[in-house]
Amino acid sequence: MPDRYVLVLAGGRGERFWPWSRPERPKQLLPLAPGGRSLLAATLDRALRLAPAPGVLVLTASALVPSVREQCPAGVRVLGEPAPRNTAPAIGLAAGLFHATSQEASFAVLPADHAVDDEAAFVADLTRGFKVAEKEAVLVTFGVRPSTPEPNFGYIRPGTQIADRLSRVAAFTEKPERAVAERYVNQGYLWNTGIFVWRARVFLDALRAARPVLAATLAPLGESMDDAEWERRMTERFPACESISVDYAVMERAPNVLVFEASFDWDDLGSWGAWARRQARDDRGNVRFGRTVVLDCDRCVVVGDGGIAAAVGLRDMVVVHAGGATLACRIDRTEDVRAVSEAARVGHTKETR
Amino acid sequence: MPDRYVLVLAGGRGERFWPWSRPERPKQLLPLAPGGRSLLAATLDRALRLAPAPGVLVLTASALVPSVREQCPAGVRVLGEPAPRNTAPAIGLAAGLFHATSQEASFAVLPADHAVDDEAAFVADLTRGFKVAEKEAVLVTFGVRPSTPEPNFGYIRPGTQIADRLSRVAAFTEKPERAVAERYVNQGYLWNTGIFVWRARVFLDALRAARPVLAATLAPLGESMDDAEWERRMTERFPACESISVDYAVMERAPNVLVFEASFDWDDLGSWGAWARRQARDDRGNVRFGRTVVLDCDRCVVVGDGGIAAAVGLRDMVVVHAGGATLACRIDRTEDVRAVSEAARVGHTKETR
Repeated sequence: MPDRYVLVLAGGRGERFWPWSRPERPKQLLPLAPGGRSLLAATLDRALRLAPAPGVLVLTASALVPSVREQCPAGVRVLGEPAPRNTAPAIGLAAGLFHATSQEASFAVLPADHAVDDEAAFVADLTRGFKVAEKEAVLVTFGVRPSTPEPNFGYIRPGTQIADRLSRVAAFTEKPERAVAERYVNQGYLWNTGIFVWRARVFLDALRAARPVLAATLAPLGESMDDAEWERRMTERFPACESISVDYAVMERAPNVLVFEASFDWDDLGSWGAWARRQARDDRGNVRFGRTVVLDCDRCVVVGDGGIAAAVGLRDMVVVHAGGATLACRIDRTEDVRAVSEAARVGHTKETR
Repeated sequence: MPDRYVLVLAGGRGERFWPWSRPERPKQLLPLAPGGRSLLAATLDRALRLAPAPGVLVLTASALVPSVREQCPAGVRVLGEPAPRNTAPAIGLAAGLFHATSQEASFAVLPADHAVDDEAAFVADLTRGFKVAEKEAVLVTFGVRPSTPEPNFGYIRPGTQIADRLSRVAAFTEKPERAVAERYVNQGYLWNTGIFVWRARVFLDALRAARPVLAATLAPLGESMDDAEWERRMTERFPACESISVDYAVMERAPNVLVFEASFDWDDLGSWGAWARRQARDDRGNVRFGRTVVLDCDRCVVVGDGGIAAAVGLRDMVVVHAGGATLACRIDRTEDVRAVSEAARVGHTKETR
């Protein structure tokens, strides 16, 4: 029986869904998955098809632990990060914990705030990824064949093919300009999903090689100790970690990275528009959620959470009432929502009498 | 010393400013007047330049009496209408009360939710109106020379001229189609402001002639009695009155109606757009009130009351966060806000999971 674990990364702040998402209720806790469930709940469903509940670990911000725990089935472990440090420290921490449980542990990394509709294909692909990772000392990342030249995703250039849908990675790229993204799509690049499978030991080796200080800072958190002592060390050491993504810290530097071309659909739901594309629409193309009044609108997203959102005579707009605030935004401008959320958070609003 | 009184009509529900206006905080209580004052407060300022505080009577909905009283200077009398019955019963009631105080009482009728900027001209015109009404048995209404062919106003066709800016009324008209309004403007029609001056006795005579049942229903409320008895009669009789406007009940039928062409500017602020036209704008033509974030918008009205209203990439829109609801509406569609307010009030919102 293989020692399989799953790490669910639920630390995202999801400012792009402001005002629906807020620091105390980020994107992964919003009802953005089919059936009005949270993305976290949908991700946990998938996780539990890969490992039993005690093998699933959710990492989130310390302040969110209670809300996250509410959505977790019994047995799932939830740990809080005392400070946000991006993905590399979180995955390094989990690798240490899984490795302490079993020297042969392998684990999948699942971001908690992405959309995956075809769960059967997802489970089949991840299972195949586990088998590859259990046999060889490799880091397996999952790529998705692009349906559009999306400039908001990272891309992976596949190199030598090893097996069906499995290749070495030739290069990781940052988010490209649209023209560059079009070239990538034509050249067979894949979207970088941020979903991974590897043995804990293989990841720890790669982290030590690429980021020795980070690996050393995290190492004592994987030793055997009582809970109070662990908490003390976590509070002291985790915030001392370098804040860095696993792509930049490890994936782009490691020599043994493979990419698996996924057969499941996937989206990181990075904007209102990305979410809306996956929702049911009325006969004029509007997506409605919660309490809404929609009069003569086309292709709008209208959300009324905790109050009514009314939209009249609009085209291609996002209108949201949530968390004691209102957003009205052209749907092609939702990239700016993060800036608005920041302005709202730090109080850079204009006060006018 | 003339016996001059003022009736302030503060019974409006102001659904056109939803969600800023609500049943418990209608338009006349919103800070829509210059300097962020309420329209009611601004109206009371004008009233007190026409009569001393004890001569000013404010009629409003019973439920609003406490909020209205808060905005009234000491001495001003506030009475509640147990049910909304439009303007004719309210004015008939006031006429009876003023006439009981003084047989020679004359009074001005001022709607509480209109905008008048040139207060000196207003006071001069109303004073001249009082003098005309004190001398002759006439009903004096105030008209404003149109600046635009506004289809949302009633119009008055002046007849024979009697003195400078004073004519008999040839006809009152309903709100016209735009093409008809253009013809009215070219033919010298005036906007019907709903501002009047007359002697109480003259109005009571006209009401008795035109609407005898309504006049008889109201008559016992002008008799001398103690407060408790008056309250009892008011609760019983006022709701029994026909709900009808003074224009329709009296003005369109009475033979002795004069129209005074006002020299003051005036607007009934019947929509978001009408209010916005009178506000200061930023360098891109946006009107902002309260807590707002405005990014790359032109000619928008953005109001954040009790929460942030954020607008991104919009043109010619109204965006409002207030009263636990959101409105996003094209500024040329604000006529539909009343329907939205009604849908919100009766719960005709769509609930979508």
